[in-house]
Amino acid sequence: MPGSTYGQVFRITTYGESHGKGIGVVIDGCPAGIPITEEDIAIDLDRRRPGQSAIVTQRKESDTPHIMSGVFEDFTTGTPINIFIPNEDQRSKDYGHIKDAFRPSHADFTYQEKYGIRDYRGGGRSSARETAARVAAGVIAKKLLSHYGVIITAYVDQVGHISIPEENYPLSFATIEENPVRCPHPETAAKMEAFIKEVRKDGDTVGGVVSCLIQNCPIGLGEPVFDRLHADLGKAMLSINAVKGFQYGSGFRSARMRGSEHNDLFDNIDGKIVTRTNNSGGIQGGISNGMEIYFSVAFKPVATIVMAQESVDKDGNAALVEGKGRHDPCVVPRAVPIVEAMAALTLADHLLRARLAKV
Amino acid sequence: MPGSTYGQVFRITTYGESHGKGIGVVIDGCPAGIPITEEDIAIDLDRRRPGQSAIVTQRKESDTPHIMSGVFEDFTTGTPINIFIPNEDQRSKDYGHIKDAFRPSHADFTYQEKYGIRDYRGGGRSSARETAARVAAGVIAKKLLSHYGVIITAYVDQVGHISIPEENYPLSFATIEENPVRCPHPETAAKMEAFIKEVRKDGDTVGGVVSCLIQNCPIGLGEPVFDRLHADLGKAMLSINAVKGFQYGSGFRSARMRGSEHNDLFDNIDGKIVTRTNNSGGIQGGISNGMEIYFSVAFKPVATIVMAQESVDKDGNAALVEGKGRHDPCVVPRAVPIVEAMAALTLADHLLRARLAKV
Amino acid sequence: MPGSTYGQVFRITTYGESHGKGIGVVIDGCPAGIPITEEDIAIDLDRRRPGQSAIVTQRKESDTPHIMSGVFEDFTTGTPINIFIPNEDQRSKDYGHIKDAFRPSHADFTYQEKYGIRDYRGGGRSSARETAARVAAGVIAKKLLSHYGVIITAYVDQVGHISIPEENYPLSFATIEENPVRCPHPETAAKMEAFIKEVRKDGDTVGGVVSCLIQNCPIGLGEPVFDRLHADLGKAMLSINAVKGFQYGSGFRSARMRGSEHNDLFDNIDGKIVTRTNNSGGIQGGISNGMEIYFSVAFKPVATIVMAQESVDKDGNAALVEGKGRHDPCVVPRAVPIVEAMAALTLADHLLRARLAKV
Amino acid sequence: MPGSTYGQVFRITTYGESHGKGIGVVIDGCPAGIPITEEDIAIDLDRRRPGQSAIVTQRKESDTPHIMSGVFEDFTTGTPINIFIPNEDQRSKDYGHIKDAFRPSHADFTYQEKYGIRDYRGGGRSSARETAARVAAGVIAKKLLSHYGVIITAYVDQVGHISIPEENYPLSFATIEENPVRCPHPETAAKMEAFIKEVRKDGDTVGGVVSCLIQNCPIGLGEPVFDRLHADLGKAMLSINAVKGFQYGSGFRSARMRGSEHNDLFDNIDGKIVTRTNNSGGIQGGISNGMEIYFSVAFKPVATIVMAQESVDKDGNAALVEGKGRHDPCVVPRAVPIVEAMAALTLADHLLRARLAKV
Repeated sequence: MPGSTYGQVFRITTYGESHGKGIGVVIDGCPAGIPITEEDIAIDLDRRRPGQSAIVTQRKESDTPHIMSGVFEDFTTGTPINIFIPNEDQRSKDYGHIKDAFRPSHADFTYQEKYGIRDYRGGGRSSARETAARVAAGVIAKKLLSHYGVIITAYVDQVGHISIPEENYPLSFATIEENPVRCPHPETAAKMEAFIKEVRKDGDTVGGVVSCLIQNCPIGLGEPVFDRLHADLGKAMLSINAVKGFQYGSGFRSARMRGSEHNDLFDNIDGKIVTRTNNSGGIQGGISNGMEIYFSVAFKPVATIVMAQESVDKDGNAALVEGKGRHDPCVVPRAVPIVEAMAALTLADHLLRARLAKV
Repeated sequence: MPGSTYGQVFRITTYGESHGKGIGVVIDGCPAGIPITEEDIAIDLDRRRPGQSAIVTQRKESDTPHIMSGVFEDFTTGTPINIFIPNEDQRSKDYGHIKDAFRPSHADFTYQEKYGIRDYRGGGRSSARETAARVAAGVIAKKLLSHYGVIITAYVDQVGHISIPEENYPLSFATIEENPVRCPHPETAAKMEAFIKEVRKDGDTVGGVVSCLIQNCPIGLGEPVFDRLHADLGKAMLSINAVKGFQYGSGFRSARMRGSEHNDLFDNIDGKIVTRTNNSGGIQGGISNGMEIYFSVAFKPVATIVMAQESVDKDGNAALVEGKGRHDPCVVPRAVPIVEAMAALTLADHLLRARLAKV
Repeated sequence: MPGSTYGQVFRITTYGESHGKGIGVVIDGCPAGIPITEEDIAIDLDRRRPGQSAIVTQRKESDTPHIMSGVFEDFTTGTPINIFIPNEDQRSKDYGHIKDAFRPSHADFTYQEKYGIRDYRGGGRSSARETAARVAAGVIAKKLLSHYGVIITAYVDQVGHISIPEENYPLSFATIEENPVRCPHPETAAKMEAFIKEVRKDGDTVGGVVSCLIQNCPIGLGEPVFDRLHADLGKAMLSINAVKGFQYGSGFRSARMRGSEHNDLFDNIDGKIVTRTNNSGGIQGGISNGMEIYFSVAFKPVATIVMAQESVDKDGNAALVEGKGRHDPCVVPRAVPIVEAMAALTLADHLLRARLAKV
Repeated sequence: MPGSTYGQVFRITTYGESHGKGIGVVIDGCPAGIPITEEDIAIDLDRRRPGQSAIVTQRKESDTPHIMSGVFEDFTTGTPINIFIPNEDQRSKDYGHIKDAFRPSHADFTYQEKYGIRDYRGGGRSSARETAARVAAGVIAKKLLSHYGVIITAYVDQVGHISIPEENYPLSFATIEENPVRCPHPETAAKMEAFIKEVRKDGDTVGGVVSCLIQNCPIGLGEPVFDRLHADLGKAMLSINAVKGFQYGSGFRSARMRGSEHNDLFDNIDGKIVTRTNNSGGIQGGISNGMEIYFSVAFKPVATIVMAQESVDKDGNAALVEGKGRHDPCVVPRAVPIVEAMAALTLADHLLRARLAKV
């Protein structure tokens, strides 16, 4: 059954496999009149691209976006927008060894069982390469949001045991793109980078956390009771490869708190109703309240490691899986634009949906 | 825009407000042939019901379910099932004080802004009373799942700073319903109960964590790339009132781990392909792999407290909000059947969707 | 799978069976701020009600609507609106004879085959009684449309071989509700009424055509390429019991025409772009163009007749079915408010959807 | 808002414009395991292709389908299938004359009003070229249906005033593809062909009717109450360019009939429950009953004619529109595979949906 579509009114459908002709996305429901070029899209794709730095996979992909429809003279026309990104560096032979064996903590086994057939090359459809299509669509969502002043910024918060020390909050975002880790605190970034290199040397991988801040979100986004804004943000994040957890506002920390310390008191600042604190994370009753929205996303360590691992094949026979292919020692630096894209797609959808709340 | 519908093929729409005629749910897409009675539904509603113990709100509601359609001679007929639960103890006058003022960390402000009108009595639509409708629908989903042997068990894992000590894992579930907290470890349950009573005496509230285990889930549930099983479970949980975070399998802990320790190696036990460890939480690539599914859900402290709190009214004037009404000092004991219900609704939906994977 | 939901953003889900507790509808996605009372809803229900005149079924149903949620102090609140209409005159014993036998041209056989179980009393879910729920929802849709000046008028165009003579066009609608047939041409109405009585005396039934005119529809409603306005109107009409055909604008007549006579030339009348003719029926490329929308709907003769008919039972044995129960000799007079309701629901949905076309 | 998606579980989204890079379709929800090649798809595209005979438009398009994803080693994998058809013969300069003026009975005016911008070249998104994408997707739907023995055959029934004489029914389909009109009655086909040539010589166009027969449809397809099988077939047909009407079974003829002559009596033939007549058109209560499904679709004359026509431009100034470009004198011969495709897509969707009816 269809599962490759996200969004109710700003709706994307992604397609494509890791080692097929390419991957892409069709956006249906994008309003007419948004300026967009292939160059705009390339900017975020470059932030997600393999080979962008020494601490990511060295697979060679230029990830060049082609707008195939829906844009006329550099403006959206209200009709479906297809963006296609050809695959270039398809070393499919790297994957012959997993044609029959199941890689540990990958989707090989479950795809085989569910569909009875799978494109095993590079994980096929289950490859994180699919997220390039989301990043491309996210650029258009960001363009729509920018009309309303909404700003979305994601960054690396944690790599393995290394986090930004509490005393550095609130963060300055100026340096995020100045280091390959995309951590806004330069000293921590340097430690993270060194640690990732060490992990890679071991032929191993490590997990991390990406956090995201949304500024200037209008009041009123989110549709109770199921399509709460944070519920859709959570689903969006959990749909990204390797994500294991999501929290917003006070998150898991709130479980230890008392109501009297957690409640955000309303105040009137210069005629604008605000809250004095923001444990709510900018969302109350599932609806944005105009304060900053913030959330965190936990990524597990990449499953592909260089060491040989015991496994089984389709017939249940013992098999040894060795980490060929080229992969990331830590996924979070490249996950930053993906988190932003999924946040933008969620907000764009809800921004439009909110237009229908009143007669 | 519609937001009160959940599920693609086993699809529920809830309706109703805290202090209107009642609340209810229409289930469309339930297969024909499932045995169901009002008595079946009452069992889980009683676990969610106010007044069930000394540590929950003392609002008096029998929460009696009425099957209004879709069931004939105690079997589902494949047509929409409407279950209606009348409101009984509607002390609307308790809420006159919030007609104009916004309660801190409630949805009063955001509903007013979004819709320009709100039923202020008891929070109206934003009240957690709405979840009774979900529990009722969840009973039918559980009936469907029980045909396939699926067992869903939620329990309280943490209240404030009190958690079940690690050494008691794996847990025995036998005693969950024997204490008012619904914690499977009796000693911890006693501590939690005492703590909740203490918090209530202070006129305060406290947060907590509910965890859930799903056993015997068939292989193949979950629809890549967006409707991953855990993404839909996450959305389902985040759509419950007061939830601030969701993690499954290794969760946020995975961010600190290395791939070599996190990967779950496949094995062949008596002709069945299993994993030796289960950091994946029973889901790989968004699809169930036949191992146990487990996840945790963080609940913030209830926003209604007895103490007076500063706030503002619709016009931005200062206002003092006092905690009248009758509310829970800690929501997690009553949240256990809600978490189970949302898990059951998600799995029922995906169980049916998975029927369409192959020709 | 769910099939009882109609509409994308103004979305209704109907529930209930002919001889259960009642029938009803949940409207999710209705904007906040629309004035509505139970009395408003009763007006159109009375136009659809059994027993309203001598030429319709004499089943006794007051069809009293109860607003169960979503309305506060006589205004919609943006939350789901449940309207419930209790069944009153449930002579279920009238239907014992069809418990096992299949009535010709009814849905008994197909429901039994599809679901393996059916509520046989009065056709259960397949009864046209379900359309009362649509009429109730349609009243709210009409209220929304009236904000924009949209006027929807349906009427009986044909009963059996009797039609309104061509020379009486354009029609005056003043007299539609003055005769029990709901035909705007009094002389033709009288002929139709006499004919229906004759048919009833024979224990037989007869088909007919309902036409509908939509005035003041804004330009821009309809979403290419599949959700063309007329495609959704067509689906809406074809989803009504007993409907066998739909045509809009020039309809089937257009198949005989040449482009040079069919094309509607644009003109500028007092600064407004209009067409000189209206073969397009107010819709071009699936989008409303501001001209009048008109369409016709063919209804087959009611399947329940008084005469005994040969049939088979569940086991394939020969069975004789006799027309007990109380039914309409001709369905079109009562179908008029149903056609209006489905048109209103379609337009309300598209009116809201059209808000999203531009940035 | 999205309108380019059709189907609930076998779901297609088309994209592309007449004179952009190409047109295409993404199919999400196609089950795994269906054999498919580009050659299979080309067969039906050739039946829809411009330039295939002397009586259709002479625009030169090879309409070569490229499978971009979702197929591995010639089998569907259960992941989204993108089929892309490049545009080749894009004489965009032919359309400079309609950049500002609105062609009569085209979608130029409504697109401009709705979106505020339009790709005017060849009608852009509103061009019937979009239907090539549907035909491509329809081939895969047909492959799925052929697993269950379902056969879909469309043919031309009427061109202008010329119809197949009644006495030739039931029709033999052997000769449909042997004449350029696709009419199964050779003598009538010859008359139609001559008439189309005559109309073309006049620089004019003419309408027609396509009928369709579905054989071996399983019992149980169709989801009451809104997604009745014929309601979805109707919507599918009405979503095709130039369609003005739809009827199934006895259709508009039924309005003149009495119940006693219209009812289809059940019978038991060799242990199979059938109906003696088939006014129901194979569908009862919105659900297929195992008999043949048949319906007819009315097409208006193509709006582009060679003669000059009066019109207005964007500013409401008078403008003369002349029929440049290359167009069809009569659309129905090329509409035959489109009608089949939309029927196949509807049935494939419902075939899968019907799997969910029982526990």
